[in-house]
Formats: sequence, structure tokens, C-alpha cells
Amino acid sequence: MSDDQRYGLARHAILPGPLALDGGGTLLPVEIAYETYGTLNADRGNAILICHALTGDHHVASTHPITGKPGWWSRMVGPGKPIDPARHFIVCANVIGSCMGSSGPASINALSGAPYAMRFPVITIRDMVRAQAMLLDHLGVSVLEAVVGGSMGGMQALQWAATYPDRVRAALIIASAARHSAQNIAFHEVGRQAIMADPNWAGGNYYGAKPPAAGLAVARMAAHITYLSEAGLTEKFGRRLQGRDAKSFGFDADFQVESYLRHQGISFVDRFDANSYLYITRAMDYLDIAEEHGGLLANAFRGTRTRFCLVSFDTDWLYPTRESRAIVQALNAAGAQGSFVELSSPYGHDAFLLDVPELNRVADGFLRAGVA
Amino acid sequence: MSDDQRYGLARHAILPGPLALDGGGTLLPVEIAYETYGTLNADRGNAILICHALTGDHHVASTHPITGKPGWWSRMVGPGKPIDPARHFIVCANVIGSCMGSSGPASINALSGAPYAMRFPVITIRDMVRAQAMLLDHLGVSVLEAVVGGSMGGMQALQWAATYPDRVRAALIIASAARHSAQNIAFHEVGRQAIMADPNWAGGNYYGAKPPAAGLAVARMAAHITYLSEAGLTEKFGRRLQGRDAKSFGFDADFQVESYLRHQGISFVDRFDANSYLYITRAMDYLDIAEEHGGLLANAFRGTRTRFCLVSFDTDWLYPTRESRAIVQALNAAGAQGSFVELSSPYGHDAFLLDVPELNRVADGFLRAGVA
Repeated sequence: MSDDQRYGLARHAILPGPLALDGGGTLLPVEIAYETYGTLNADRGNAILICHALTGDHHVASTHPITGKPGWWSRMVGPGKPIDPARHFIVCANVIGSCMGSSGPASINALSGAPYAMRFPVITIRDMVRAQAMLLDHLGVSVLEAVVGGSMGGMQALQWAATYPDRVRAALIIASAARHSAQNIAFHEVGRQAIMADPNWAGGNYYGAKPPAAGLAVARMAAHITYLSEAGLTEKFGRRLQGRDAKSFGFDADFQVESYLRHQGISFVDRFDANSYLYITRAMDYLDIAEEHGGLLANAFRGTRTRFCLVSFDTDWLYPTRESRAIVQALNAAGAQGSFVELSSPYGHDAFLLDVPELNRVADGFLRAGVA
Repeated sequence: MSDDQRYGLARHAILPGPLALDGGGTLLPVEIAYETYGTLNADRGNAILICHALTGDHHVASTHPITGKPGWWSRMVGPGKPIDPARHFIVCANVIGSCMGSSGPASINALSGAPYAMRFPVITIRDMVRAQAMLLDHLGVSVLEAVVGGSMGGMQALQWAATYPDRVRAALIIASAARHSAQNIAFHEVGRQAIMADPNWAGGNYYGAKPPAAGLAVARMAAHITYLSEAGLTEKFGRRLQGRDAKSFGFDADFQVESYLRHQGISFVDRFDANSYLYITRAMDYLDIAEEHGGLLANAFRGTRTRFCLVSFDTDWLYPTRESRAIVQALNAAGAQGSFVELSSPYGHDAFLLDVPELNRVADGFLRAGVA
């Protein structure tokens, strides 16, 4: 394991598979790009798996290779942070379906020698989790000290606890949900339709040609609104104009919020694959952990010994507090050990990625409570 | 006026103008498609102007010529309804900038003989109202018994009271706002970018060619989500699948909510012009009645004798109750006569168009209170 033990080591595993998928197909081999931080203890009991969100990646606390920005959760992961390589063996893997090195629609299909494109199998959050379990097998980690994630990362963390209860001692689920609501699905469908309406999408066969950048940018813009609170947008931008004193009476970005959104859309296409956006949003829409357990979420957690901590943000309207509360109620009904805190933040859903000291205190307390 | 007095008479006025616009240009002539219902009294005091929403039109209580559907506010306007042609002379005009017969980007520019397209001047809500005032002059109506509208129609009604206080005895403003918030602007910008990203948009010069149908459909889908409440979407669709028993593990419309949204997008392009969508959303984004009055909304209404009634819906997150409350507070500060009611409805913003008996009772009571 020596080469896994260096700080922030980017790795790439080609696991033989086959990985049986919820949709009925199989994936083989299963490629997973991941990073590890810290050292696995002799008893192999200090591993923490971090699960990323829709457009996230495994660069949780290392510089992003395309954007040059700090890792997406440097506030949570690092020396002196709640998830600390000095104490934990930290694993963060790019989900399958994504485009940062794990198997996804942009990957070369070994059988055909060409990119999968839309021939990549439709996957689920549970499939992502199964692939992560294969990676942990490969790394010699049988039981996780904790699985941690926000947004889609929280969905994976919850799915981990439901699918592999004996492999998860603790699950920290932030700004997330156990299923996608009709409104969640609706926003994703807008994004998918924006991508598929772009002629450059070409049925997904755009690799080696122009990608559907305009469609993907629109998808990102629509999604980005859902990541922010109305009050946060008002505070950040209000009706302030962009670099001029008066309205232009035209269709350029007059308001700062327009300019900001356009930038979010345009910069996203440099780092993300449109087909991956289709596949991962589909996986999220398919999530309904209760459905996998006879329609009752509590059934997913009966008899579990996993400790749970749920965190929501009061201004998050994408995965609002009631979604976390529903999970906690199911955990209670199942007799599982679960705590819940709603944090106050003006930033909406994005708060889990931002500087919210209270979130770090909650995470630190929860993770330390499990260590004898 | 005899030909104005028949029930549901569709008319088209070509007013000489020029109409001076907030953006500095002028519009001439000013074409306005409108309908009238009922008869103007001898004292010309029973006229009610109904203002329509973003994608609405003058077919307020008559069959829509393209969709064949009943008028968009048949629940509010008609015999025995709060706005009744037996008592009122009802006028509803297509706003300028729109595409149902009033001057807009699809209109022929008399100077060039070609459609304006993006050479149509950018307009404001106040410009729409000024054009309506010209129409009322043409119809011999100097003072309105009431101006009534929901959503963008409410913005016009409020703007009417601010711009022509002596011409408005009462203003009924439903599910509306005195300015567009950053989030409102953001959603509109997504729609505009979706349209402009469609290669068929061609800088707006698509008349006589293929319109940007895909982009406009995406714009409509994104907007449509904002018209419905999360709870309403859940009640109406939840996670129910569309015409099959199990997930397809593909990208067809699996969920009913996807199918519904796609239908909303596709059917919209048959009845609406993409450039009009750009212009009218821009007009709404520019709305900030306080800004026109030194930054204080109350200044717009000092000394007014107009009676106001504000109605909001508790599940409307597009123009939430706090926006109506802000207007009422400004009216109070100005010493104006204003009442306010928040109605309960599961339907979100769209409630003003739906069967909400309480809305009709409020409207009826408010409108009758002004008649001696």
C-alpha cells in the first residue's frame, strides 16, 4: 500500500469487474480515478470515503488539473480539518459515469475501440457505490470508519449504508436526499433537453468533434440557480448592473447576475463532458432508496449498526431540510442511531462547499465520536 | 363604438404614435391587437383593463385561435364572473413586444418592409402601459374603473397606477412584484441563453426559415418549473413513471414530470415567437418601479387616489408573498388605500390562472367596493 500512502496521490485503477448494474447490463473493466490522502492503519480501520457531487471529482483536496483551483472540499479535508490525513486514510473516487478518469460515456469501450458515448449503460447511484466498493476491496479496506458526502455525495453515502451496512461504521450525509423529487427531476430534465437540443450533441457522438458546449452551458446555468438561495442571489448581485451605469436596452449581460451565470455556464464546459452530465443526472433522478426496500425507507436501515449524521441548510431549496428530516425519521423508525442538524446559511445548497464553520464543527464532532 | 360593444370582439388598432420609449427610441406606428367585451357606459366609467402575463395574449375569455383552448382567464372574465361584460366594458390588449398581433419583433418594420427581428427596440413594462394608454385614448376611455392583472399583468397594473394615477380608480395586482429579483432575472437569462444558443435563432433573423424551436422549448421548460410549486409537482406527478411499469434505463421521458415538461416546451413553440420571448423577459427584468422614483417605491404612489388590492399565493416562489407585502408597505407609507390577502393554494405561481374560488371572491369584492 506504500504508494497509496502519500498525501494527495492521484491513482487510476482498472478493476476487472464485471460490475453488474441495476439496469441489467454489466460494466467491464471498471476504471476508477481516485485520490488517497493519509495512511491506512495496521488494523485498516481509519478509512474515510468521500463521495462527490454531480459535477465533482476525486480532487477533493488537491489542485484541479484543468481549472487550477484548490480541491473542492479543501475546507473539510486536510491537515487540521475534520477529515485529516494525519488521522484518516482518505479515499475519494470519481464516480462511474463521470469524465475525470473513471469509466463513463467518454471512455473507450474496450470491445469497440471507440468511445462509449450513449452506448454507455445507464447507471444508478447504487451502481456508483458498488464500483466504489470494488475499489475499496482493491485497496484492502473492508470497513469504512465513515462515508461522507454532500448533495449527490450524500446520496451515495446513504446508499452505502443501505447497501453495505456491515462496511460502514458511520455515514455523514449533508444537504442531500433519499430520493429525487418531481422538481429535482424537472430541473435535470431541462438540463438534459438543453444538451440534447444542441446540434453538436449529435446523439452523443461528438467525441473528436465540437462538443455541445452551448447546450451544456445552458444546463449548467439552470442548475446553478438551484444551488443558490434567492436571498443569497439578492445579497450577492441584487439588481446591480454589470460594468456600466445604466441599462443598455439590449441583450448583453446587463445585470451582474446574468454575467455571473454566463460565466458559470461557459467555464463549466471546459471541465465537464456533456454526456456525463446526462448520465449522472439520470442516476440521481432514479434514486429512491425507499423504492428499493418495499417503498419504506426505514426498511433500508433495520438492524444497521451504522451511526448517521444528517445535516441540512435552512436556505437549501434543492434538497431542503424536510428531505433530511424524512431520512432521520426513517432511521428512527428503523431503530438506527441518527442525529440531525439544520444549519443556518445564506448560501443555499452550495453551503456544503463553502466556508461554514459550524459544518466543520458538526463533522468533526460526529467523526471523532466514533473513535474509541 | 358600436363594433367594440359586441361580446369578445377581436380588434386590431394601428395607432399613429409615435410612442416614445424608455430606451430612448420611438415606435411608430403602434399596432395593438385587443379584445373588448361588454359595453362602455354613457359616462364611460365602467372600463376594466386586463393585463396579461409573459406568454399571454388578448384572448382573455375567447377561444385561442392557435390552440383552440378557452381564453386564459375565463374563470375570472365572463357572464356571472367578477369581471362581467354585463356590467363592465372589458379591454384586454396584447402587449407590445409580443407576437399575437401587437407590434413586436415579428412585425414588419414599415420603414424596411422586413420583420424587425432584433432591430425591434427593447421595451419596458412602462412602454407596454403607455401603448395601452394610447389604445384607451383611441377607445374613448379616459379613466379606468380598474386595471387588473396577474404576474406580468400585475406588474403592468401597478405600473399603470404609478404612471397614470388619475386614469386608474382601482388596481388589482395578483401574484406579482414591483421589481424583478436576481433570481427572477437569472431564470429569464437561462431562457434567453437557451434561445440564443439554438443555431436556428440566427441572431433573430429566422423569419421565413426554421425558428429556434428547440431553444424556445427549453426556455419554456425552465420557466414552467418556476410557475409550479414543489408540493404541486409532487402531488401532480411525484415519481410516477410514464406509461410503463419500470424504469427504462434510458433517456426517454421515464417520469411523468419529464413528459409533462417536454409537452409544455413543444406545444409552446407552436404559439409563441422566440424573439418576443427575449423582448418580454427583458422588459420584466428591467422592471423596478422604485428605481423610477428615486429608489423608494412609496414615492410612486404619494397622493394617489387609486384603490389597490394585492393578492399573493402562499406556494408561489416566483413572486412570493414578500414581494406583494413590500408593495403594500410602500402603499401604506404613501398613504394610499391598499388591501392585501395571501391566499392558500397548492399550485404555486400558476394559481392565479387556475380554479381558486377565493381569488374570485376577493376580486369580486374589491371591484364591487368601488362602485357606488
